[in-house]
Amino acid sequence: MDASNSANAASQVSLADIVTARQRIAGGVAVTPCPESIPLSELTGSRVFCKLDYLQRTGSFKERGARNALLQLTEAQRTQGVVTQSAGNHALGLAYHGQLLHIPVTVVMPRFAPIIKSSTCRRLGAKVILHGDSFLEAREHALSLADSESLTYIHGFDNPQIVAGQGTAGLEIMEQVPGVEAIIAPVGGGGLLAGIALAVKTMKPAVAVYGVEAANMPSFTSAVKAGGPCDVAPCPTLADGLAVGRVGRLPFDLIRRHADEVILASEEQLSLAVLRLVELEKAVVEGAAAAPLAALMSGRFPQLRGKTVVLTLCGGNIDPVVLGRVIEKGLATDGRLARFTATISDRPGGLAAFAQIVSSAGASIKQVTHDREFSGPSIAHVNVQCTVETADREHLQQLYTTLREAGFVVRE
Amino acid sequence: MDASNSANAASQVSLADIVTARQRIAGGVAVTPCPESIPLSELTGSRVFCKLDYLQRTGSFKERGARNALLQLTEAQRTQGVVTQSAGNHALGLAYHGQLLHIPVTVVMPRFAPIIKSSTCRRLGAKVILHGDSFLEAREHALSLADSESLTYIHGFDNPQIVAGQGTAGLEIMEQVPGVEAIIAPVGGGGLLAGIALAVKTMKPAVAVYGVEAANMPSFTSAVKAGGPCDVAPCPTLADGLAVGRVGRLPFDLIRRHADEVILASEEQLSLAVLRLVELEKAVVEGAAAAPLAALMSGRFPQLRGKTVVLTLCGGNIDPVVLGRVIEKGLATDGRLARFTATISDRPGGLAAFAQIVSSAGASIKQVTHDREFSGPSIAHVNVQCTVETADREHLQQLYTTLREAGFVVRE
Repeated sequence: MDASNSANAASQVSLADIVTARQRIAGGVAVTPCPESIPLSELTGSRVFCKLDYLQRTGSFKERGARNALLQLTEAQRTQGVVTQSAGNHALGLAYHGQLLHIPVTVVMPRFAPIIKSSTCRRLGAKVILHGDSFLEAREHALSLADSESLTYIHGFDNPQIVAGQGTAGLEIMEQVPGVEAIIAPVGGGGLLAGIALAVKTMKPAVAVYGVEAANMPSFTSAVKAGGPCDVAPCPTLADGLAVGRVGRLPFDLIRRHADEVILASEEQLSLAVLRLVELEKAVVEGAAAAPLAALMSGRFPQLRGKTVVLTLCGGNIDPVVLGRVIEKGLATDGRLARFTATISDRPGGLAAFAQIVSSAGASIKQVTHDREFSGPSIAHVNVQCTVETADREHLQQLYTTLREAGFVVRE
Repeated sequence: MDASNSANAASQVSLADIVTARQRIAGGVAVTPCPESIPLSELTGSRVFCKLDYLQRTGSFKERGARNALLQLTEAQRTQGVVTQSAGNHALGLAYHGQLLHIPVTVVMPRFAPIIKSSTCRRLGAKVILHGDSFLEAREHALSLADSESLTYIHGFDNPQIVAGQGTAGLEIMEQVPGVEAIIAPVGGGGLLAGIALAVKTMKPAVAVYGVEAANMPSFTSAVKAGGPCDVAPCPTLADGLAVGRVGRLPFDLIRRHADEVILASEEQLSLAVLRLVELEKAVVEGAAAAPLAALMSGRFPQLRGKTVVLTLCGGNIDPVVLGRVIEKGLATDGRLARFTATISDRPGGLAAFAQIVSSAGASIKQVTHDREFSGPSIAHVNVQCTVETADREHLQQLYTTLREAGFVVRE
């Protein structure tokens, strides 16, 4: 069902398909809540609601499309099974619903896929094959398996059944927030935004639909410039769910036709949005799911002030180690965690004098590392790299000022 | 309203008070969801539901009692205002509802209170006074202010109106999970468990009600041994919301009368439970809120296998910096993050050889620090402290074995 060679791909899926998909997947996929958030509304100046699709059983919206596609297989296809290439949420959604529906699922992942992804997929009943050193090699192997073992290949986004399934989130949003004026969704392969935009713009054309992609891998924006889907260079991003090298043909056509605008979110903006969701919504989300808030916080949508906006928090599968790092990065952006180098006296009491000044400025030292080898010509002085907790940027600047007034050389 | 001198304090509050409290606070305090958790059920062997009280506006259940108490003030008391001592969720709940009800709120915090707590309280409209170097000194100042400025002192837990308010969570749980067989709630001052136990045991005596306190500050357990509330030594705990030096007289009497058992959770158990809630529930909770899951995971409740159990996730106000550290601690407990010291050759290529072995074992190096000064007598060797990511404990042990077989001296 790869739609990449179709010239008018957008005609492959319609609102009717989404409405049918909704009936088809009902009972198997959660209708996730979409509550209002007072703190996010205060933060952004819009009236913010959050569609909590990260609360799906496998932690993402991908179950919508996966179940919709699985339920349309013929009896023979169901018996034979399906195959896909994915190291992410599509694999989890397909594995889980394949297990529920007793359809064998094979997932091909590149050899570098995180252990947690392959083990979770196996736990959900899928056959996991590690193959190749790139997503492309893994995909080629999956396609060859589809051929040799008569498995149905289910693409993660460039498939009308998948797009129709993801669009069911748009139907739910319109019912849950009848006064919605804008919806913001992330763009990786484009399936989610395409489905939502198609559903929402067909039913309520006045509702604005915006997309956000990771600035590090702007596959949609590049496709617009190139006149069609093209490859973008792989580049790490916190929003690993959006790290797709080439937007799907079908989603591309649908997004161009129905969505209002797609903007970019930087890594710093994504980190900060994850931190805000942790702090204000008590929600654990992956980078992709934080992209809509990152976009709203960026100031790029002044027209949304005072408007009712739904952010689609599409997934929660963030590696806890990464979450810890993202929190630190977000705190650093806030000026609540900072690292700087100071030159202090290497005589007894040098560190004590330094620590005393930091403490008197109301900052809290988290870590100090001495660097004797690279402290310049004076053997009476030593560089210390110091990590501190402060209240905000202003407080941090006060700390630097206080230290400099006390005679310390500080390099931010 | 301090009940500490009353011999039969438990008679000060009844089920009727809780039912009335619920009507009183309706519309002002959220009826938080109580969904079933498939992953936590799989993990524990019970059928687990989670009462998501961390989704209250100020991030904890404390709003229940605070609003209930505020709404029972006389007109004169409302005009004059209220005062309390708290550096935590009680202060936030009181400040927020004071603002909503136009009642002036003064909060006294010890001088060492985290900046974030005082600034959040001020943002919610409270007058914050930093006073004293201990909770006791702060409390004495708050009581003297109550006296000198005719403010009503609202104790965080040893107050029948507060306990009645917290008990409303119990009424909601019984309606939301009609088949509930056991409820687990944390114990700090004891207000929440006392209110829930009173409500639940009066209405449905067959439902088991268990408490969990931080092993580092076992104020309830100590009180049982001493025959009544007594001071326990301050000791840091991840569950800072449970770090109360002396359980309340009223909660103590109610818990002894109504709850089935109170057990202790260690710091390691609390960390791991926070991590599990992040990973499996996508929930950001503070240590206190993770205590019920820690208790269920501890194996101390074999009678709950297969039973329908509600965990009260009472608060989400965890410092993001602490959350990052807790995640790391939890990962270390899992064997998914480890630090060890290895002795390697200090010649060129020494580190490369070591890194190659680690990589071939499927582990990922997160950090390496050389320690030349303290590497023993051989100048041809150097100690490196190495932080690695592994799949689990078994994988970590395999890594150690592989390194030792390759001739490295490894100290775990």
